[in-house]
Amino acid sequence: MVKWIAHHGVERILAEMTETIEADFRRWESFDKTHRIASHTPFGVIELMPISDPDTYAFKYVNGHPFNPARGYQTVTAFGVLADVHNGYPVFLAEMTLLTALRTAATSAMVARRLARPDSRVMAMIGAGSQAEFQALAMRAVLGIDELRIYDVDPAAMAKFERNLAPRGFRITVCDSASQAARGADVITTCTADKAVAQALVDADVAPGVHINTIGGDCPGKTELDPRILQRGPVFVEYTPQTRIEGEIQNVAADFPVTEFWRVLLGHAPGRTSADQVTIFDSVGFAIEDFSALRHLRADVAGSGLAQEIDLVAAPDDPKDLFGFATAPVPVV
Amino acid sequence: MVKWIAHHGVERILAEMTETIEADFRRWESFDKTHRIASHTPFGVIELMPISDPDTYAFKYVNGHPFNPARGYQTVTAFGVLADVHNGYPVFLAEMTLLTALRTAATSAMVARRLARPDSRVMAMIGAGSQAEFQALAMRAVLGIDELRIYDVDPAAMAKFERNLAPRGFRITVCDSASQAARGADVITTCTADKAVAQALVDADVAPGVHINTIGGDCPGKTELDPRILQRGPVFVEYTPQTRIEGEIQNVAADFPVTEFWRVLLGHAPGRTSADQVTIFDSVGFAIEDFSALRHLRADVAGSGLAQEIDLVAAPDDPKDLFGFATAPVPVV
Repeated sequence: MVKWIAHHGVERILAEMTETIEADFRRWESFDKTHRIASHTPFGVIELMPISDPDTYAFKYVNGHPFNPARGYQTVTAFGVLADVHNGYPVFLAEMTLLTALRTAATSAMVARRLARPDSRVMAMIGAGSQAEFQALAMRAVLGIDELRIYDVDPAAMAKFERNLAPRGFRITVCDSASQAARGADVITTCTADKAVAQALVDADVAPGVHINTIGGDCPGKTELDPRILQRGPVFVEYTPQTRIEGEIQNVAADFPVTEFWRVLLGHAPGRTSADQVTIFDSVGFAIEDFSALRHLRADVAGSGLAQEIDLVAAPDDPKDLFGFATAPVPVV
Repeated sequence: MVKWIAHHGVERILAEMTETIEADFRRWESFDKTHRIASHTPFGVIELMPISDPDTYAFKYVNGHPFNPARGYQTVTAFGVLADVHNGYPVFLAEMTLLTALRTAATSAMVARRLARPDSRVMAMIGAGSQAEFQALAMRAVLGIDELRIYDVDPAAMAKFERNLAPRGFRITVCDSASQAARGADVITTCTADKAVAQALVDADVAPGVHINTIGGDCPGKTELDPRILQRGPVFVEYTPQTRIEGEIQNVAADFPVTEFWRVLLGHAPGRTSADQVTIFDSVGFAIEDFSALRHLRADVAGSGLAQEIDLVAAPDDPKDLFGFATAPVPVV
């Protein structure tokens, strides 16, 4: 995965992946959107997230273990598999920790391209953690945003962010508060890690015309917006049943009106309708994005030497003689 | 997998795996038994089957595509993954088409060891398909059964069975009917592929004292026993909620009494109580068996050269700097 990113460049990958995800969102109704299956333990959760279209099945394995960083492990690791629907054979296996960071940023850019004001040039980043640089690069690749105003409770995170992105030509202003970061921003991205019903952004800091891209509120009990902000403008979601449980809208009424973004893409629902409007993308991360990212990666690395064959499917010459296959003479290590 | 089988010998693997599965059945209540998640298409089904104990998480990917053999593919392929519960990291990936054949046979042997008459020496095999040889070898390894009476609607399948097993020292009688095969048998294994409510074995062919090991009835609408047989003796199952849907007992009342086999192992329920009793194991295949097979394989191949490292988990030096890791300079192919 790291070699692939080095080979193509992260910004180009983000721009291209945005198109792949949008192409898949445009055929939203052709996907079989199954629920995920979670295994909870005192240490964390392990989830399997399957999804398929008529040709391709995908699933993602992902864990979430909040105590991991203190023990030298990643909080989240992930991998994914693609399979051919017609015969059920698995055909592609990939790391997805990095791929998830890329697809999350590409999804934000896909949505902001339709909902942010076309003249947007300045983004506030509230939270400068693992996802932050990917968000900034995707927004520049797709919208042309090149000025960043950042705030994080951890100065080391801001230093890391500046170290990673200043050499890439962004103008970066390090701020003392979320309010200061939000000042003058056209897009506000909240991407904080606090596992709580938090208010990383309050209503008073949201100017008319802003597009809000809220990433960190993504599981029950973990949100980051002052709920009054949700009343300010139309709220757009990926998949309503999932976002009601995991997104910012868990803090408002169960019938709070939202628009699924694919309907905007297909012209079934309006996006932004005026320059003064506040638009809100309540992002939680949806299985189609993983599907898109996996098929994008698979197509991109085909024949490149970046992928390797794994002998994972038993293929007896005679499908009815599994035993003969299993006990055939082979060189033993 | 084939190298592993060649290295240890299939009969020894079956005997050892029987012990691993029994050890896990004995700690039945320590498992988190989640339901599987199925994705159905006109071509077939793809399922993810997760299960975990307090230390180890496992899932199996398995497809079922009935039209595959006519197109040169296997009906069923499978692979599995083990992960560490404490940090959620995936640690082991393995082919499971062969492993499923092995664990199914080992499970049958584990159950027959407790339920068949101790003096059992003759097994009838109704159905000589992919699973048949594994069943025969497991029953010999664990119970000492060395005489086989086989019947299959397809003479080629019986020829294959005899070709594979006669050189391994079994006395094999090829029969003209299921009735003839069942005559004089101590254990009757039914393992047919017909996707229907079939009667591969009828009540009149079941003598007192027989243990019936019924493998082929394993999904809704696919059964192989005359339902009157189920009234003859106690019926033992793996996991009752699953077997009610998938097993032979789908053809009897929803409150038909059954015994979960782990309770026999722990002395919570009786097994066979007399030499004249008919005992029935309504096998459908349960996730603990996959878990056991995967952990057995993992332990067996550790350090052997039969397993290879796969770089599947992103491991940045600084868990908070995923971007720096993703864009670190690497040699590009």
